[in-house]
Amino acid sequence: MTIPTDPETGEFHRAPNRFTDRITADGRDGWPVEPGRYRLVVSRACPWASRALVVRRLLGLQDVLSVAVADPIQDERSWRFTLDPEGRDPVLGIRFLAEAYHKTDPDYTGGISVPAIVDVPSGKLVTNDYPRITLELSTEWTAYHRDGAPDLYPEPLREEIDRVNDEVYADVNAAVYEAGFATRQAAYDDAYQRLFSRLDRLAERLAGSRYLVGDTITEADIRLFTTLVRFDAVYHGHFKCNRNKLTESPVLWAYARDLFQTPGFGDTVDFDHIKRHYYQVHEQLNPTRIVPKGPDLSGWLTSHGRESLGGRPFGDGTPPPPPPRQETLPPQW
Amino acid sequence: MTIPTDPETGEFHRAPNRFTDRITADGRDGWPVEPGRYRLVVSRACPWASRALVVRRLLGLQDVLSVAVADPIQDERSWRFTLDPEGRDPVLGIRFLAEAYHKTDPDYTGGISVPAIVDVPSGKLVTNDYPRITLELSTEWTAYHRDGAPDLYPEPLREEIDRVNDEVYADVNAAVYEAGFATRQAAYDDAYQRLFSRLDRLAERLAGSRYLVGDTITEADIRLFTTLVRFDAVYHGHFKCNRNKLTESPVLWAYARDLFQTPGFGDTVDFDHIKRHYYQVHEQLNPTRIVPKGPDLSGWLTSHGRESLGGRPFGDGTPPPPPPRQETLPPQW
Repeated sequence: MTIPTDPETGEFHRAPNRFTDRITADGRDGWPVEPGRYRLVVSRACPWASRALVVRRLLGLQDVLSVAVADPIQDERSWRFTLDPEGRDPVLGIRFLAEAYHKTDPDYTGGISVPAIVDVPSGKLVTNDYPRITLELSTEWTAYHRDGAPDLYPEPLREEIDRVNDEVYADVNAAVYEAGFATRQAAYDDAYQRLFSRLDRLAERLAGSRYLVGDTITEADIRLFTTLVRFDAVYHGHFKCNRNKLTESPVLWAYARDLFQTPGFGDTVDFDHIKRHYYQVHEQLNPTRIVPKGPDLSGWLTSHGRESLGGRPFGDGTPPPPPPRQETLPPQW
Repeated sequence: MTIPTDPETGEFHRAPNRFTDRITADGRDGWPVEPGRYRLVVSRACPWASRALVVRRLLGLQDVLSVAVADPIQDERSWRFTLDPEGRDPVLGIRFLAEAYHKTDPDYTGGISVPAIVDVPSGKLVTNDYPRITLELSTEWTAYHRDGAPDLYPEPLREEIDRVNDEVYADVNAAVYEAGFATRQAAYDDAYQRLFSRLDRLAERLAGSRYLVGDTITEADIRLFTTLVRFDAVYHGHFKCNRNKLTESPVLWAYARDLFQTPGFGDTVDFDHIKRHYYQVHEQLNPTRIVPKGPDLSGWLTSHGRESLGGRPFGDGTPPPPPPRQETLPPQW
């Protein structure tokens, strides 16, 4: 996998998403919400894709939007369905996610990323625009939400959620990659500095407040969670985000465990996929491709004490039932 | 720097030391103990060399055995005196430690390692046999020990010290390198397993006992200390020894801090040299050569509570005075 960095500054910047069609209730882009029509392609290794796995679980969309899980190890053709029989996704019939990208744009030469939503009848990629994908599951797919689904993007809080999301994106979600992929010391130092000063501010905010915005779980918590859950397993060592481990930051560690233990969060997390992906795909950072045996992850299930802060995790809704059998992960440790 | 590993198993094994002449009180190898005659060459990055720095401080040998500190960054000619004016050691007059090796053996093509003791008049390397170097400072240089020097290798405890040293060498001192330099997963896994199961047993031993053998500081503590002090700074991330940080192992962390705060230990430690050496020299493990900014090291000076276990750090002796001005390190954080 090639990681493009600026030859002058050594900085890594994420490429913008090329495919930004929207799947909407009114179908104005030609892609109406329709049960069974689309397939969500993810890697359980990927923090951006994992957001969509959490949202789909919380909203109970598993019966209307099926999921394809890619092998955590990409090859030079990127994400592949080597976990499936004969190496083909059983619904889309393709071996590589790139095939759906090229069905939409035969001339496309950019990156192949997850999450991606593919139109099953045509086999075409509709969108890989991850920041919109989760918001649209919340706002456009409402007709198919389960009974008791939470409102993850409540109207009166959207401005604040968007602001928090912008900060968390720049200084946390993206910053860990900017630290890890930097090829010059100054670029790394800058990302590290932004990351830990933002985490300190988030810890202050969360010291007295169970969730990031309002008193229920929102999109903002999901976006922070998918980075935090990977922190000690991969970002701390592999990406050199090592001022301290998450486990050494009491407020953020309790906050992350609280979410992890909430149905819909921890049950989407596959630490084996996460560790193998990061350590084996980024050969520029880890030429031996050896996967560390640590860290000890058993702490994720210890009590967190955050209930005493109040908060109503699902607001007026209810927790989701356990995942369907075929999406249930093996024990992690 | 080339790291030789077994092409079949991916295992790294430290090469034996080639130069094993001994400097003794009776001079039987032709190298009698003599004040001012020899120069100890170290890198403050290196755990093997750092043992000798600690022992020399504790025994008060600084006026009879001078020290040369190599640049923590080796080049293809290995250790060099680029920290000194004009890049030459002011006493030996050489630019590379290899020059002393070749003065002893012009045909030598093996590794150039520290610690090394060089005979100043002839410029010849006498020994790079680190396990003997510290023991001989303790047992052969007694005529020049300071008043109040501790006995770091007391006769009645030698058998037990040797046994502990053997276990600590195999499963701790060497195992961290075997984990970090492994090129196959199985070789790494084996080293990781040995390391952490040994550390667990050492923690049990040290839970009720202030020092490893007897109730005073011995050679055994020095050999464990120089690995532990590097653990979170380099072995945890760079060598993938990441079941947990030292700071997450309460007994070993308190034990290591106790020693760090004892005169002669922490005042020999240069975390900047340590981090730059490991992260910049092993390009096979860290191709970007970026040096992590973490971890936060300020915890080394926090109280450790080990005094309550009793123990007499220096036995019937006394702590060493502060290091001479030219060997005093700048503040570390």
